[in-house]
Amino acid sequence: MTENSIVNQKLKQASEILDEVGIDLWLIVARESDTLGDPSMPLVVGTSVTWESAFLISRDGDHKAIVGTGDVDNVLQTGAWTDVEGYVESLGPALQAAIEQRKPRSIGLSYSTDNSMADGLTYGMYLELERFLGKTPYWDCVTSAEPVASRLRARKSAEEIQRIREAIATTETIWAETAEWLRPGLSEQQISDFMHSRLDHYSVDSSWDWKYCPTVMAGPNSPEGHVGPSDIVTEAGHLLAIDFGVKQNEYTSDMQRTFYFLQDGETEAPAELVEAFGVVDAAIQAGANALKPGVTGWEVDLAARQVLEEYGAAEWKFAFGHQMGRACHDGGTVLGPRWDRYGQRPYDLIEESQIYTLEIGFPVAGRGRVQLEEDVVVTANGCEFLSDPQRSLILIG
Amino acid sequence: MTENSIVNQKLKQASEILDEVGIDLWLIVARESDTLGDPSMPLVVGTSVTWESAFLISRDGDHKAIVGTGDVDNVLQTGAWTDVEGYVESLGPALQAAIEQRKPRSIGLSYSTDNSMADGLTYGMYLELERFLGKTPYWDCVTSAEPVASRLRARKSAEEIQRIREAIATTETIWAETAEWLRPGLSEQQISDFMHSRLDHYSVDSSWDWKYCPTVMAGPNSPEGHVGPSDIVTEAGHLLAIDFGVKQNEYTSDMQRTFYFLQDGETEAPAELVEAFGVVDAAIQAGANALKPGVTGWEVDLAARQVLEEYGAAEWKFAFGHQMGRACHDGGTVLGPRWDRYGQRPYDLIEESQIYTLEIGFPVAGRGRVQLEEDVVVTANGCEFLSDPQRSLILIG
Repeated sequence: MTENSIVNQKLKQASEILDEVGIDLWLIVARESDTLGDPSMPLVVGTSVTWESAFLISRDGDHKAIVGTGDVDNVLQTGAWTDVEGYVESLGPALQAAIEQRKPRSIGLSYSTDNSMADGLTYGMYLELERFLGKTPYWDCVTSAEPVASRLRARKSAEEIQRIREAIATTETIWAETAEWLRPGLSEQQISDFMHSRLDHYSVDSSWDWKYCPTVMAGPNSPEGHVGPSDIVTEAGHLLAIDFGVKQNEYTSDMQRTFYFLQDGETEAPAELVEAFGVVDAAIQAGANALKPGVTGWEVDLAARQVLEEYGAAEWKFAFGHQMGRACHDGGTVLGPRWDRYGQRPYDLIEESQIYTLEIGFPVAGRGRVQLEEDVVVTANGCEFLSDPQRSLILIG
Repeated sequence: MTENSIVNQKLKQASEILDEVGIDLWLIVARESDTLGDPSMPLVVGTSVTWESAFLISRDGDHKAIVGTGDVDNVLQTGAWTDVEGYVESLGPALQAAIEQRKPRSIGLSYSTDNSMADGLTYGMYLELERFLGKTPYWDCVTSAEPVASRLRARKSAEEIQRIREAIATTETIWAETAEWLRPGLSEQQISDFMHSRLDHYSVDSSWDWKYCPTVMAGPNSPEGHVGPSDIVTEAGHLLAIDFGVKQNEYTSDMQRTFYFLQDGETEAPAELVEAFGVVDAAIQAGANALKPGVTGWEVDLAARQVLEEYGAAEWKFAFGHQMGRACHDGGTVLGPRWDRYGQRPYDLIEESQIYTLEIGFPVAGRGRVQLEEDVVVTANGCEFLSDPQRSLILIG
């Protein structure tokens, strides 16, 4: 199964990263992971579990699972896990024994203050681990597995990049279908319904919460941010910006497009909108030009942000870009300003094979928002656009 | 919207429970909650959030949200939250101010060693809270909000019970369609595919992980537990047990049915299977008879378990019943044995308006598994079956 090929690749990669960062053992724990599971589980486990479970991934390539008896065959079926021990009454003794056998000098747990995708350990499960291991010498060598979970997620394999390309291709098809269908007089709700119907047609899911994917911003009065569609309608002379992505074969896309509704007699957009769009386009290109291995996230953000600032546009209140992959917001290094809410993430260095969104925009009084978002993969010397970037307003009418 | 009516009901109920357990403030925090969100959020928040967010629910009925600016309209759109403060750079100062204004003598956080559904706080977010509040006097009055989250989830409102009834009704339709369609020579995979096609037809989701919902157990050689379908085929003279449920309008069902494939010349199941089925049926009824407000979970489990033990059947290695609702495994009090893996949960007292599954079974050599699961709601003096319980083997052929 293709699914398991990714789990096998990621398990191998995890051991390599453990060696790179000098952690002997990555201990992932979970229970009822359908409802609340460590975000690393889809990458390195490949199934959900019901009862308290432990997944031990060693630096030397060995890995062992300890799960409730009812989950044993479930985990074996992944094909990626062969050493699977079942328990009936308690996870504790088997976990203690497995750790004593391995004698790790350091144990990484999945917690992180900065990267939510590396923060899969609940506080209750942390207390459970303390109960099981607190009296052993191994509790003193517990540390954060953040660098492991973050790098594992960020460094996309060829197969992961291929799946993301496919998600983007479907998104581009839906963009084209939507542009074909758009006309003045449609409510944000109708536009959302249309795009949802295309998701259903292609049997793919929305990239994020169905309620606000797409996020539809029609004209100058649309509410800002992550918000469901309103009854505001598209009008000639107004802009329409849409933030949208799909989840296909477990991988995501995340793009924004800006449309202009021609007024009677117009054959192109007014000069002020062409100019405004040009600023957003230039900001995207400036960010893309700055994006390459070895630079920090905030430097890329600044390159794009400055273009808006020089033009005198309203401040962009978000990061210029985030990683994208299994989750639409894939965590880790962010192309963002040095704000507290991003923690250390803007200071991290860009690496090859990471995938980022590039997104920015601003409102034009009385018209709506000009806003773009493109998806790129970092290459050895720069980055490559994974979608055909929007270089001019899409004209409707 | 119906969705929000539940959020409003649950917010009101949360304040009542805070008063009941003597906690002044329930503080729910989250970020990227599409990927990993506190399981209480669908009940009391009603949307997902992207940036670090805090939801303050007070004993006196007041509630306030502090979220990234991009989530403000999103949270306002729930209709349930009206006091929503946006921040750009950091959650910390606004959270500190909001808590200082309320001066709570106790703050409940969403963590629990025993109930995964009350354990929505990640360890990384716990450390973030410590960073924001650790130097204030309020950090000393932090406690577990487990009793609040558990009771809130367990005490179903009339609307929640109605939604569960509807999910069960759809499940019963699919059981009937499946029974009609079943024949010897079908693989577990084909049966799973058929039931998935019925889920798609009714536009409902599987109650748990799509891969092993349904869990199909054909004949005596099917792997045990939560496991995806194999290539084993149904045969005359064999049993077929299926564990299946739907998620409809955000609420779940969870049922098991046992089928027997008649052999040439048979018009009824062999006596040994009729007898075995009778034992499982008797165990379900014994459990249902023991289930009423004020008894402990383990007493109900024991009443059912003893019926199997007296018959000499193999031990049932799971709890006899779990709560069901927004999640299929809805956490909290469990009708289970006093095993470490269930923690304190079997010792909790049953309450009116809780919804439980009742499930038990065992293998019959050479035949397969006789296994049942029914869904019940606790009433003032006992319990009521929400589905039409299976009282005899379903004969196919």
